[in-house]
Amino acid sequence: MKNNGPILLIGAGLAGSLLAVLLARQGFPVVVAERRGDPRAKGYVGGRSINLALSIRGITALKAAGIAEQVLHDALPMPGRIMHPKTLTDATGQGTVFQPYSQDPRDAIRSVSRGGLNVALLDAAEATPGVTLLFDHRCTHVDLDRAMATFETPQGRVELQGRVVIGADGAFSAVRQAMQFTDRFDYSQHYLEAGYKELHIPAPEDLPDLPQGVAERFEGYAMDPQGLHIWPRGGSMMIALPNPDRSFTCTLFWPFEGVHGFERVGALSDAGVRAFFDEHYPDTRWLMPTLEQDFRRNPTSSLVTVRCRPWRHGRALVLGDAAHAIVPFFGQGMNAAFEDCRILAEMIADAQGDIESVLDPFWRSRVEHANAIADMAIANFVEMREKVADQAFLYHKRVEQAIHAELGEEMPERATPLYNLVSFTNVPYAQALRRGKELDAAVARVVSLVPRDRAAQMDADAWRELVADHARRVLGGLPA
Amino acid sequence: MKNNGPILLIGAGLAGSLLAVLLARQGFPVVVAERRGDPRAKGYVGGRSINLALSIRGITALKAAGIAEQVLHDALPMPGRIMHPKTLTDATGQGTVFQPYSQDPRDAIRSVSRGGLNVALLDAAEATPGVTLLFDHRCTHVDLDRAMATFETPQGRVELQGRVVIGADGAFSAVRQAMQFTDRFDYSQHYLEAGYKELHIPAPEDLPDLPQGVAERFEGYAMDPQGLHIWPRGGSMMIALPNPDRSFTCTLFWPFEGVHGFERVGALSDAGVRAFFDEHYPDTRWLMPTLEQDFRRNPTSSLVTVRCRPWRHGRALVLGDAAHAIVPFFGQGMNAAFEDCRILAEMIADAQGDIESVLDPFWRSRVEHANAIADMAIANFVEMREKVADQAFLYHKRVEQAIHAELGEEMPERATPLYNLVSFTNVPYAQALRRGKELDAAVARVVSLVPRDRAAQMDADAWRELVADHARRVLGGLPA
Repeated sequence: MKNNGPILLIGAGLAGSLLAVLLARQGFPVVVAERRGDPRAKGYVGGRSINLALSIRGITALKAAGIAEQVLHDALPMPGRIMHPKTLTDATGQGTVFQPYSQDPRDAIRSVSRGGLNVALLDAAEATPGVTLLFDHRCTHVDLDRAMATFETPQGRVELQGRVVIGADGAFSAVRQAMQFTDRFDYSQHYLEAGYKELHIPAPEDLPDLPQGVAERFEGYAMDPQGLHIWPRGGSMMIALPNPDRSFTCTLFWPFEGVHGFERVGALSDAGVRAFFDEHYPDTRWLMPTLEQDFRRNPTSSLVTVRCRPWRHGRALVLGDAAHAIVPFFGQGMNAAFEDCRILAEMIADAQGDIESVLDPFWRSRVEHANAIADMAIANFVEMREKVADQAFLYHKRVEQAIHAELGEEMPERATPLYNLVSFTNVPYAQALRRGKELDAAVARVVSLVPRDRAAQMDADAWRELVADHARRVLGGLPA
Repeated sequence: MKNNGPILLIGAGLAGSLLAVLLARQGFPVVVAERRGDPRAKGYVGGRSINLALSIRGITALKAAGIAEQVLHDALPMPGRIMHPKTLTDATGQGTVFQPYSQDPRDAIRSVSRGGLNVALLDAAEATPGVTLLFDHRCTHVDLDRAMATFETPQGRVELQGRVVIGADGAFSAVRQAMQFTDRFDYSQHYLEAGYKELHIPAPEDLPDLPQGVAERFEGYAMDPQGLHIWPRGGSMMIALPNPDRSFTCTLFWPFEGVHGFERVGALSDAGVRAFFDEHYPDTRWLMPTLEQDFRRNPTSSLVTVRCRPWRHGRALVLGDAAHAIVPFFGQGMNAAFEDCRILAEMIADAQGDIESVLDPFWRSRVEHANAIADMAIANFVEMREKVADQAFLYHKRVEQAIHAELGEEMPERATPLYNLVSFTNVPYAQALRRGKELDAAVARVVSLVPRDRAAQMDADAWRELVADHARRVLGGLPA
């Protein structure tokens, strides 16, 4: 039995507006109801430029919607991590450590503006016949079985009925909340001990103290724009992603409590905050003229992981953050949500438009992958804030990348590292996790056979050959 | 800063009414607001007699409230499990297997009526000066910071302010729900694949087909009342607890899906249901004259585990099921809630009545124990439905009990099994879990040294001596 009516999408954020395009292109009428106002009319409310790392899963979905090219035009490729040690006391970039994500320089994650991307997706949705966008519609109630939703709007209460309701309404989803009061709905929300706060590195013209020659060296930026900058400090870290306006958006990921935590540092005077950064992030001295104000004014936000099952109840489905909000340390929240949208649209097309029939198969096939990337995202926090500053870890990564470079084509199933599988392939997340772990064990074995001190005494080519030779045996299940 | 006003307890169930007694006895004014009507006026709404297993933690708390003696008067001691194999085809009790919970026959869990216990606790609360009971007060909103709660009542909307609010309002707690929308509140609700349904074994006078002599043999019951009856069937099971009226309350714990599941069997005709029981629970043929109707009419309910943290926000606290609903397989839900009440009352007394100061220390000290018993309760489902029918498991248990009997006084810290620590001591749950696991490993070692086939060839006393000898060495860290 089908309801009549359009597909009713709750949420016109990144996932909602992309899904609207994908479904309307198949001929479905789609109504998208968004809690906030139209960001194109009012200016984006996210404050200063927030950026996201777009990788292959997101790009694949954007291609399916026909807007990848446009989005990639403004995106800044980041082919690796750029680590800033605590001992780094100048702003010239000397002494940072570049760690490529891949041996293939085309493998890069891409810094995109969240606001800009949302506007591009809304424009695309509006330009797609069959899509109706409704803003200032705050969903207050969902009748899951009848696919009816109630909204508060400036014009009063509005009820809409859909053929189905799809909640793409984020980590605090109203659709999921309705599901939470149904029997046998598994649900968890788990917060990290750490929170985040955004800071700002402006373009060089707003940095009077920046040493001569730095901007010239970095294509007009105050730091190298070709990378994701990390200041790993053990339990705490800072990262920075480049923006097209030659500024960087920085994010502190610190525990709320403790010596290097938001509560203690937040209680310091402005001079105390500055002194704290001088000590722990010394090379930012020239880069953050508005540090004290930014630190004081910008909110400290929490980091939540949400899991649930089932994702469907009656005629309602949740996807993206609404079904699986994850922490940002693998840069996969948006990418996972876009992959949800692409796969759902493909399954509907394969079912000749019988959308009701694919709701269950869809979430049942997706939930293990959502759980896998949720786990990987949490694990990557530890890697970013602690391990990337560790010599043994960096050597392990170097061996892994060498194996990938030498054997990736010969045995792609076995010799592709976890990060690459997640960021540069569409291999399902749970599979990527399993394969990544297997390779990791093999790398550990090769590291024990070709230890770091031995590598230091060897010619680079001979080392690569030796590593590849051992890896071929280990990965092939032969005695190494 | 203290609010004025009474302690406002939400929920007059088992935990709420007990806590009211314990706090009013310290001189606090206590208002208890309950969603339902007064069970003493209207008759208990739980339907047929539901019973619970009261063990030492619950008794300790009831003693603190001065009502243990009265409650124990009507309680039926169950010193062990009585297993009903699938091959058992008569109703005479021949062929059941008794597995004692302890070598000490005084160690018994006690079957009590939930309704009767609730009435006894409400009577005790009402008789305690300072307690006000309000029924038909459904909590619709809680202001956690101000300790204000709003209620719907037959007389309209009512607002109450307390010094603090304590939510003892069960697995679907309104107080916890208010907490769930605060930042950094970790929460999970997880359902088992299995649900439950209650059935009924009446007293012998209502069992026309019961074989002669059975009732006389079992003190006027249709089965031995001195035990917790289990029909272990792998993925499914049935249990039965005795009632003072000489009936038994039976509970099916079956998966919703699958061959031995509620959906499939529920779709059968009455004759089909009866035939299913004849096949899988053959000795119930004489015991369940109303099986078909009970199976049809009684609801199938789900089994949830709820965990959260923190248990305090502002001036509000949750405890008991509201903070940590668990599945019933260890018989500890009520006992854990009563232990919460006792410990909170003790901490308040130790703090000279400064209740605000103990809210955080209370939950921080309790949460690991709540998590431990939640895990143990889930694990015990597997033990009850599968392992208790397994010869190797039964031998392992026999060795464990022999070790406890021989060495329990000599090394109580090491030689007390998990079940005994949980049910017959007040040792904190997490500690019980750790010690139980350590003993379990030692038992496995002793079993390997004195295997089952060897035991079969030995005199019982010699076997006990040999087991004790090995166990003393293993537990003492000596080479066995």
